[in-house]
Amino acid sequence: MRYFIELSYLGTAYCGWQTQPNGISVQTTLEKSLFTLLRQETPVTGQGRTDAGVHALKSFAHLDVNELPFNEEIWAYKWNALLPADISIQKIIRVRDDVHARFSARKRSYRYRISTRKNPFENGRAWMLFRQLNTDDMTKAAEYLKGTHDFTSFSSARSDTENRVCTVNQIILREENGILMMDISADRFVMNMVRTIMGTLAEVGLGKRQAESIPDILASKNRESAGENAPPHGLFLTDVEYPPDIFLL
Amino acid sequence: MRYFIELSYLGTAYCGWQTQPNGISVQTTLEKSLFTLLRQETPVTGQGRTDAGVHALKSFAHLDVNELPFNEEIWAYKWNALLPADISIQKIIRVRDDVHARFSARKRSYRYRISTRKNPFENGRAWMLFRQLNTDDMTKAAEYLKGTHDFTSFSSARSDTENRVCTVNQIILREENGILMMDISADRFVMNMVRTIMGTLAEVGLGKRQAESIPDILASKNRESAGENAPPHGLFLTDVEYPPDIFLL
Repeated sequence: MRYFIELSYLGTAYCGWQTQPNGISVQTTLEKSLFTLLRQETPVTGQGRTDAGVHALKSFAHLDVNELPFNEEIWAYKWNALLPADISIQKIIRVRDDVHARFSARKRSYRYRISTRKNPFENGRAWMLFRQLNTDDMTKAAEYLKGTHDFTSFSSARSDTENRVCTVNQIILREENGILMMDISADRFVMNMVRTIMGTLAEVGLGKRQAESIPDILASKNRESAGENAPPHGLFLTDVEYPPDIFLL
Repeated sequence: MRYFIELSYLGTAYCGWQTQPNGISVQTTLEKSLFTLLRQETPVTGQGRTDAGVHALKSFAHLDVNELPFNEEIWAYKWNALLPADISIQKIIRVRDDVHARFSARKRSYRYRISTRKNPFENGRAWMLFRQLNTDDMTKAAEYLKGTHDFTSFSSARSDTENRVCTVNQIILREENGILMMDISADRFVMNMVRTIMGTLAEVGLGKRQAESIPDILASKNRESAGENAPPHGLFLTDVEYPPDIFLL
């Protein structure tokens, strides 16, 4: 039987989602506590990877179990009690056996947060830029990124993904109480894409780069032409969308 | 010349506001960085004390300097650069020389936050209670605390304050997205008062105590009759009010 877990985590203490030889990952932490609970090795497959320090308000993963000694609600309750305070299982939902947390996803949404002034409560949860950014210019630049493009210029050179064509459905920028937020959603994201977009748009907002330079950056298909990566701790995965018929109620 | 500083801090790393023989306080941290900046010992007097782990969204302190080599805005900027990420100076304002951060205050406001479900982003910023509380019953209980009362039953037995009469102007309870918040303001608070009120109201919300028991608790003038203290990390000082004529513009 295949189950989806809906979870959230504060990424500060982790080397990212994926199990790594050095550092503790969210995935390893989930699998270890699940072993304690079920007394059998149960791999947990995530919706994708998140970098070290990146957070998730809402993410998904799948796993297979043969039989459960309790219902989904009690399972989530017991699993949460074993997990550390910075990872939380929101829900466990039975899905069809052919559904995959990564490959069945059809849309992902991220939020990037920049603190434009010093704020003790935003440390580790926003890019501490402490500068005023021109949101209008950034919005103008973001318009060029909407739609279907080859995002090679906004992807890590380390990525071994060959297809870097993504369809960006939405980019919204707004500032509230000293926090500039970028909400972005796409069918898929290539490695470091949100951080490179944010870093490049921040350069536009600071007047270091013109909004009108974006089409040339995209066309160049060269990572060097875009801006610096924004730091990981300002990034939050906010949602992953699946076709509604995957859930077995 | 006397100045007020408006500041905020995340209390997690500190032994509280006040300088202590063991542990680093917010006050010591401010005074040390100010010495680095001004090259002279400058005591910083706070609006009151906050316990270890308690946060401040908006607090005030006063200090005296003879002359400043820069204006208030540059002073705040330079001071912030020397302070750690968890303390921030929002504003520095010239005040009359007879004004005192503690004794001139006429109203203080606190917010207490309870997380009614597991939330990785609320760890250290809310009381992790993970239980559903009856907000209606808590509101009924809170009504009895409004107005002028002797709050000895809601004050630490360790407190050496003789006068424990306080006037509570407002207590509002509401729950939003799994966070139960209590906003309380009064002319003054005695030691541990907000935490004892919150702990007692939580017992009402969990059905362990009747809302109607509050008048008897107040009348007993005995700390033993109230509930347990709620933990410090859910508590935020949100504002301190001063007469408007103290500020020299």
